[in-house]
Amino acid sequence: MPIEVDYRFPPGVDAARQAQQIAIGQTAGTWDERYAHRHASLRRFLGEVAGLTALPGGGAVATIRFPEHNVEGDIGSLLTMIFGKYSMAGPAKVVDLRLPDGYGTPAKLGAQGIRRRSQVAERPLVMAIFKPSLGLSPTDLAAVVDEVGVAGLDVIKDDEIMADLPGARTLDRMSAVRGALDRVASARGRPLLYAVNVTGRSADLLESARRLVRAGANALLVNVLSYGFSVLESLAADAEVDVPLFVHPALSGALCAAPDHGLTYSVVLGHLCAHAGADAVLYPSRHGSLPFEAAEELRIRDALRPRRVLPVLSAGVTPAIVPQIIADYGHDVVLNAGTAIMEHRDGPAGGVRAFFAALEQMGIRA
Amino acid sequence: MPIEVDYRFPPGVDAARQAQQIAIGQTAGTWDERYAHRHASLRRFLGEVAGLTALPGGGAVATIRFPEHNVEGDIGSLLTMIFGKYSMAGPAKVVDLRLPDGYGTPAKLGAQGIRRRSQVAERPLVMAIFKPSLGLSPTDLAAVVDEVGVAGLDVIKDDEIMADLPGARTLDRMSAVRGALDRVASARGRPLLYAVNVTGRSADLLESARRLVRAGANALLVNVLSYGFSVLESLAADAEVDVPLFVHPALSGALCAAPDHGLTYSVVLGHLCAHAGADAVLYPSRHGSLPFEAAEELRIRDALRPRRVLPVLSAGVTPAIVPQIIADYGHDVVLNAGTAIMEHRDGPAGGVRAFFAALEQMGIRA
Repeated sequence: MPIEVDYRFPPGVDAARQAQQIAIGQTAGTWDERYAHRHASLRRFLGEVAGLTALPGGGAVATIRFPEHNVEGDIGSLLTMIFGKYSMAGPAKVVDLRLPDGYGTPAKLGAQGIRRRSQVAERPLVMAIFKPSLGLSPTDLAAVVDEVGVAGLDVIKDDEIMADLPGARTLDRMSAVRGALDRVASARGRPLLYAVNVTGRSADLLESARRLVRAGANALLVNVLSYGFSVLESLAADAEVDVPLFVHPALSGALCAAPDHGLTYSVVLGHLCAHAGADAVLYPSRHGSLPFEAAEELRIRDALRPRRVLPVLSAGVTPAIVPQIIADYGHDVVLNAGTAIMEHRDGPAGGVRAFFAALEQMGIRA
Repeated sequence: MPIEVDYRFPPGVDAARQAQQIAIGQTAGTWDERYAHRHASLRRFLGEVAGLTALPGGGAVATIRFPEHNVEGDIGSLLTMIFGKYSMAGPAKVVDLRLPDGYGTPAKLGAQGIRRRSQVAERPLVMAIFKPSLGLSPTDLAAVVDEVGVAGLDVIKDDEIMADLPGARTLDRMSAVRGALDRVASARGRPLLYAVNVTGRSADLLESARRLVRAGANALLVNVLSYGFSVLESLAADAEVDVPLFVHPALSGALCAAPDHGLTYSVVLGHLCAHAGADAVLYPSRHGSLPFEAAEELRIRDALRPRRVLPVLSAGVTPAIVPQIIADYGHDVVLNAGTAIMEHRDGPAGGVRAFFAALEQMGIRA
């Protein structure tokens, strides 16, 4: 099955010409009479313009069909093929992507695995973020875990900017929190997942992930765009890293937010993450604090679901918008709150209870 | 020494407010009365607005100063801090970056190491790209190497879309070309570098690089944006990978080409590559075939040079524009041509000779 990519060109661009340039330039690289003697062997690598549609407001969308055997079945070679050199060629945006079902790295655990590990059978999960982002000691984190655990929280994560820093080394955070996670699990008879942020040069990052899992980590947080899809793929493929990978969208706006350049959020946070081994992907709720298009948000959902990747709605999520999120997602969603939990007037436990109260009001029992 | 980042906001954005949001939101994450009891310990992580300049045409540039101890000394944690969540917050572009000298991963070989390995003491280097991009067998590649080697070529590289594919496995390409490289070196008494494209999931990619070096690779090509800066850093830090790393800009347009989003080319291909261990960085010449701003091109040069990283001018480079490139770069540059060499009317050797003839016309001897 070929790989199909939709490119949107703004008004004023000769879309037919650009589509040809992509089909040839991003595959065989060249296709003229000089290579006529090679055409028989070259043809099987050549891309093909499969469609060209003018848009009502001007501009056009071109669909290019790429042979799957031009790439390695990973995201790195895919990105180089579909938008490598061409990304520098002028305004064009990758707006959609259709990959063969078996393409890429499957999620090791996925939505079901996360439910199994957290022992939450059916309802939406409630997740929190340690705040302040920096400056909390491992002991501080453990105290927060004790508090939110008793209130029923399902998942907690580091802030994405919390790296392996002096005073809060990743392994020290894990070790300190591990005790609190054990207390919570035995007190309420159900685990609390802690997605600890795994960072570093790629080789160190993989080693760090293995070390964290050996130290008792039950989930990891990965800033996939800051470190690379190839890193997420290695974590997903590694047998020792047997915990769910929560993927954070940090830096995604640099690739996705421009109107006529880059790739859409649904391609990057949806399709690419879903084929790179993510178990859960964080992204903004359009009802939250970041500007986010409704259609893009739902396209991310629709790219993740068929691959059994759990959507984690984030950024300004409060109990007030829970009904709107549930309306779009049903129960298969994670409600992820930073300030709404950590800065709640009754403290973090009060913040967690406020989310469960919002769910209860919709008839959803904890 | 702090890390300073310049953010440019388009007209209509409240730059002062956004600058504050970056300084706090991308560091401590929160800074209000709720955390007054923690202010003493939080303050050392807090970013600071160091300047705010209105631009003549509207819009503004804000300079934010970040504590260096908020990050790990790598590019991954740096990107998450300077443009992680904030990249999704609305139009803003990272236009410049000042890192402490010792920040990051130094080049293992740099410009001098590449000159030493290729035995080219002073003049600009001439580099070619295998074409067609796909479809050449390892035997085809070896035949091209024999031909361009005799003509005096200094470096040759895979096309960036040539991955580890059936019929042209990376290790098979290296093995086949190795014989030709040996013939060239003994015929002319000077090596030809072959930057073989190293790809794959991060763990496999590092192993593949080591295997290629053991098989005789004398240079590597890395698509840093498709695979991740963390991968480049691991290659640069790995003692076994004792060959120059040529960094390719594939996908950089997705991050850099938009007017009001992402980061500039000079930040990504200049500063970040130079602090991530690149020995040489490929980027478009504004005199070539891709649209590229003069000021940005020269800012990349000026970011690479102090770190002794070799600029490799690419994309539509022909003998005709050699004088313009030399005017900007002097002798410390690589002239990298695809079609101008491989599709030359007298064949690849003729293409190589045309570049040396252009240099000779400027009084530069091969």
